[in-house]
Amino acid sequence: MNKLLIVGTVAFDAIETPFGKTDKILGGAATYIGLSASFFNVQSAIVSVVGEDFPQEYLDLLTNRGIDISAIEIVKGGKTFFWSGRYHNDLNSRDTLDTQLNVLADFQPKVPVNFTDADVVMLGNLHPIVQTGVLDQMTVKPKLVVLDTMNFWMDCALADLLQVIKRVDVITVNDEEARQLTGEYSLVKAAAKIHTMGPAYVVIKKGEHGALLFHDKKVFYAPALPLEEVFDPTGAGDTFAGGFTGYIAQSENLSFDNMKNAIIYGSNLASFCVEEFGTQRMERLQKSEVHERLQQFKTLTQFDIELED
Amino acid sequence: MNKLLIVGTVAFDAIETPFGKTDKILGGAATYIGLSASFFNVQSAIVSVVGEDFPQEYLDLLTNRGIDISAIEIVKGGKTFFWSGRYHNDLNSRDTLDTQLNVLADFQPKVPVNFTDADVVMLGNLHPIVQTGVLDQMTVKPKLVVLDTMNFWMDCALADLLQVIKRVDVITVNDEEARQLTGEYSLVKAAAKIHTMGPAYVVIKKGEHGALLFHDKKVFYAPALPLEEVFDPTGAGDTFAGGFTGYIAQSENLSFDNMKNAIIYGSNLASFCVEEFGTQRMERLQKSEVHERLQQFKTLTQFDIELED
Repeated sequence: MNKLLIVGTVAFDAIETPFGKTDKILGGAATYIGLSASFFNVQSAIVSVVGEDFPQEYLDLLTNRGIDISAIEIVKGGKTFFWSGRYHNDLNSRDTLDTQLNVLADFQPKVPVNFTDADVVMLGNLHPIVQTGVLDQMTVKPKLVVLDTMNFWMDCALADLLQVIKRVDVITVNDEEARQLTGEYSLVKAAAKIHTMGPAYVVIKKGEHGALLFHDKKVFYAPALPLEEVFDPTGAGDTFAGGFTGYIAQSENLSFDNMKNAIIYGSNLASFCVEEFGTQRMERLQKSEVHERLQQFKTLTQFDIELED
Repeated sequence: MNKLLIVGTVAFDAIETPFGKTDKILGGAATYIGLSASFFNVQSAIVSVVGEDFPQEYLDLLTNRGIDISAIEIVKGGKTFFWSGRYHNDLNSRDTLDTQLNVLADFQPKVPVNFTDADVVMLGNLHPIVQTGVLDQMTVKPKLVVLDTMNFWMDCALADLLQVIKRVDVITVNDEEARQLTGEYSLVKAAAKIHTMGPAYVVIKKGEHGALLFHDKKVFYAPALPLEEVFDPTGAGDTFAGGFTGYIAQSENLSFDNMKNAIIYGSNLASFCVEEFGTQRMERLQKSEVHERLQQFKTLTQFDIELED
């Protein structure tokens, strides 16, 4: 089985949407990535850090999904990273109400020895220096390195971010971030500029409008599945990344055509994530449901036009 | 050859975008619809009105495309409808700078006798009473009636609009208009509500994010082609409608699968329209270019995933 190394937060979230609010629940980029990747035949490990306040049942939840959590450091007396946010009525934007870095402030990632040769590395959204620190520990060049990041690091740590971007094969950002990173409004031009920064593949996430994959002169567009209701968008991007990397790691195929499939799987899994608060939907999701929804994605996008004059 | 009846404005536009501005140029919904539909083997006619100030060369342009303009009334001493607008930097929104109804104020549409049995009727954006007036003149029930409208009529003539909506098979609106018309934020729910108002098919246009086709419980998503530069969005929605109805009229096939193809053709033609100011690009567009771009649409959206466990 191929190895997928995931770095990212394992955390507490408190979420408010127009539909309700949660107390502190399980959250974090690596959590969503790991849950999503667990739908594929891969051996995955999470590199992260939590405090002593982090419930054993949350760790067990990851272990029960076959995820190696030996590199999730538990800091004695420490408190787990906490994020709290409130989504606006359209669910496309949100306000951060509270961010408590806690143990994340001094996080030094340690890649488990048996994952320094991982086939695929998924660098979840974190300080770019932490992401670089993970890459530096790899003893074998990974077949694919995927980086997720956000506008916050473009504002506060751009030089570090550009250093790590140089070293990755795939970057995933949203449309606004692609524009901020490049100063280009056109996503086609933005993607072309990001190519010159390093990544051969650029994935631009557009939320309810789907995702674009750019490579060379090629473009692929995966729609988001139109849903009756988006309940909570938290973790959708990470779930997308987990589906993308999980599928790639399983299939061992780095062709553009296979990347398309990976994008579809990412969109597929993300479409479940947003149906309930936090990780709830992902926790009880069945493989058969993912397969059924793949058929919906086909119906949604596939057409058959014969050319005539 | 099947007949396509088009009703809508034939007008002057003055457009400002971040890339430049135009003097009074050829514009109007029916103009764009007609130009776009002329890429298909259909016999089409425009019902509209212009003033005596309207240049013969613009009328010739339509005639040269094989469009029957005998029902474009020329009002002696009258002035042609004029719209002027300025697009914002993102080209997704615009301010109307000037609207002069002129001859449109008293427009009484007259369907040519040989088009009262048209196979497809495209009701371009106009006062819903004018749209109704066209339907009332049909002597044979059309195979398909498509209606385009906008938020303006929802604000000012909702009762009239609901009357004409009842009588059409397909409605095309943008996402914000779908939400305004139904009070539903979710486009899936909005489309379901619009179905109950009459139209069996609901097309929701999302500009650079593509278009959705809803029918029964089915959904199809046609992306917009990601372009290096959108130069001028004016007429994109009408060009889309012209491609949609032109293709349907040509193919005589009202199945959902064929509607998908029609949506793709609409998106295809619209992707050219926005490349230059006004009707410029559409005027010199070749069928071979449309065919080539169809291949790009396939590359953009088609994938081939084999299901496995």
